[in-house]
Amino acid sequence: MTRLLHFGSGPATLPLEVLEEAREALLELPGEGLGVLELPHRGPGYERIHGEAEAAVRRLLGADDAWAVLFLQGGASLQFALVPMNLGPDGDVAVTGTWTQKALEEARRLGGGARAAADTGATNFDRLPDALDLRPGASYLHVASNETIHGVQWPELPASAAPLVVDASSDILARPLDLARAGVVFAGAQKNLGAAGVTLVLVRRALLERAPATLPAILSWRAHAAAGSALNTPPVFAVFVLGLMLRWTERQGGVAALAARNAARAARLYAALDARPDVYAVHARPGARSTVNVPFRLATPALEAAFLEGAAREGLLGLAGHRSVGGVRASLYNAMPDDGVARLIAWVEAFAAEARAAGAPAPQPPAPAAGARA
Amino acid sequence: MTRLLHFGSGPATLPLEVLEEAREALLELPGEGLGVLELPHRGPGYERIHGEAEAAVRRLLGADDAWAVLFLQGGASLQFALVPMNLGPDGDVAVTGTWTQKALEEARRLGGGARAAADTGATNFDRLPDALDLRPGASYLHVASNETIHGVQWPELPASAAPLVVDASSDILARPLDLARAGVVFAGAQKNLGAAGVTLVLVRRALLERAPATLPAILSWRAHAAAGSALNTPPVFAVFVLGLMLRWTERQGGVAALAARNAARAARLYAALDARPDVYAVHARPGARSTVNVPFRLATPALEAAFLEGAAREGLLGLAGHRSVGGVRASLYNAMPDDGVARLIAWVEAFAAEARAAGAPAPQPPAPAAGARA
Repeated sequence: MTRLLHFGSGPATLPLEVLEEAREALLELPGEGLGVLELPHRGPGYERIHGEAEAAVRRLLGADDAWAVLFLQGGASLQFALVPMNLGPDGDVAVTGTWTQKALEEARRLGGGARAAADTGATNFDRLPDALDLRPGASYLHVASNETIHGVQWPELPASAAPLVVDASSDILARPLDLARAGVVFAGAQKNLGAAGVTLVLVRRALLERAPATLPAILSWRAHAAAGSALNTPPVFAVFVLGLMLRWTERQGGVAALAARNAARAARLYAALDARPDVYAVHARPGARSTVNVPFRLATPALEAAFLEGAAREGLLGLAGHRSVGGVRASLYNAMPDDGVARLIAWVEAFAAEARAAGAPAPQPPAPAAGARA
Repeated sequence: MTRLLHFGSGPATLPLEVLEEAREALLELPGEGLGVLELPHRGPGYERIHGEAEAAVRRLLGADDAWAVLFLQGGASLQFALVPMNLGPDGDVAVTGTWTQKALEEARRLGGGARAAADTGATNFDRLPDALDLRPGASYLHVASNETIHGVQWPELPASAAPLVVDASSDILARPLDLARAGVVFAGAQKNLGAAGVTLVLVRRALLERAPATLPAILSWRAHAAAGSALNTPPVFAVFVLGLMLRWTERQGGVAALAARNAARAARLYAALDARPDVYAVHARPGARSTVNVPFRLATPALEAAFLEGAAREGLLGLAGHRSVGGVRASLYNAMPDDGVARLIAWVEAFAAEARAAGAPAPQPPAPAAGARA
């Protein structure tokens, strides 16, 4: 066993005990005479897996029967298209990073009246908007509770008269989610919910009726809800791993316990980075900083490469920033052990000392920007 | 280990060696320091998995660079919507069973001019149409090379001036596929290609240009092709298992060898059923019978239940017919060992002897039907 610490943004590290449980199920599920990959999706074995996962989602998020809980394929990106297709063409989108930018692009391709309710691109998505320009009668307001690439997270969800759509892909179950404000919540599984290949979608049942009759069933939340997410063959293994991950989450004490731990350790990492402004520059401004994705820069690509190479020697992998922005990014999802964060902080401090001793340049301060929350 | 023989229609049985290879990869992939569920989809590890799977698809199907090879989510059912969305609204569909019926329904929901080029529903989909009513200028002709539920299989693909779309979900790699006649081929993985959660889609590159600009990227074959099927996070594990399954298929001698074996053993099963018309009635007429799905009936639900219960005692599972049609169905995909088919035939013969001895009624002959190929 030479498993290393992996800080990738997703697919992300999973708890060893979840992987061991998944491994056990591949050749034979108890009482089934076959492995989980072979399990018929119309039988009691899969129905139990699905039912237990749905019940755990409802317990962990506090979602009562006013909500439909769907397990779909296609990733959060498919939901970018399904949101306008199911709720209507005139969406407002709070553009706070790459993922909401993509969501707005997809909605616009459909030819409706989707528009940005804010756009913090002028400061390279380093903060949250001061205000949202919301239209009366908008079909929905779409936000990303956390922008995975830019490390910007809404401290609390905005209030909205239109149904609030929350892309919670990177911080679902990593902190409390204010369902009372939301109309739709979706999250790809490959960060806090297990393996790539299933997307958790919660929709208030009252919103299911908005889908037009011209929508193919496979693109309709209403049709998926009516079929219990088994309109066609579900991604059985990904739902199984989701169930294992939900049970693991409950064993950790649930969302509140994990949120407190995540906030504390992210604060320690930010403090270590902020303590060395001569070496590191955190991308996101205080007040908008994510507890799960921490992107930062060093002065030069060569320094960043040296940081990443040294980290790899320490057994700390997956720290390169997203290909679209570069730099360094540490993703600290629920399955990242505290010891991993501690070892990362130790490397941040050790590298800073080395860089100072070698007379490395300091990063430039961020460009001045106006009109956005500091 | 109490693995049993599983004749389910999909998710279907997988080769033990493929399951063992998948199991090995869960905790740690060699050289990666993490397991396959945690593997970043933008790194060399996944790129190798994807590249090897694509190359094996091309070798096994004889697909040259005129074809885009895509690994998508959403199942074959999502393709029912993507076909008209990407190729145009005026499709002809050869309705030969449940799956083409569903494909036509989805195309019609989109509000275009999709229509049936044939419909064998009058005889409960027990045969292939004598002729297809094809429109000049149709956007495409959609066929299912094999209808999983009704056990009807085209001996060869029809010729078509419009691009031929082939749903090959249940017989891909189980027999040769005449790509020269096809424009689009798709197949859910959970029968001959591994685990539910990935869909193989082949599209002639020339057809990629037909998608309208108003199509969201996530629904566009062109966009997926341009992004190498990594427009968003792919279903990493399902693609990994697909790759294992493709290598296994090559080790068996490839499509030609498997097709010969499949045809021979299906013929043995049909012969055993046809030899006892006093007990069994095969659903599909000779000339249209599938080599991979063999649905048949007994005279009464009680007899069918007795057949299934006895089969389960023999360790033969998953033989109940689809919930929409009842009866019995044996799915004999590539991963079903010959010994499994032999044991099933032995049970077919033993049960027939028991039923005769007990004076059980014979099944009714099929209702007479006109206007369709006998």
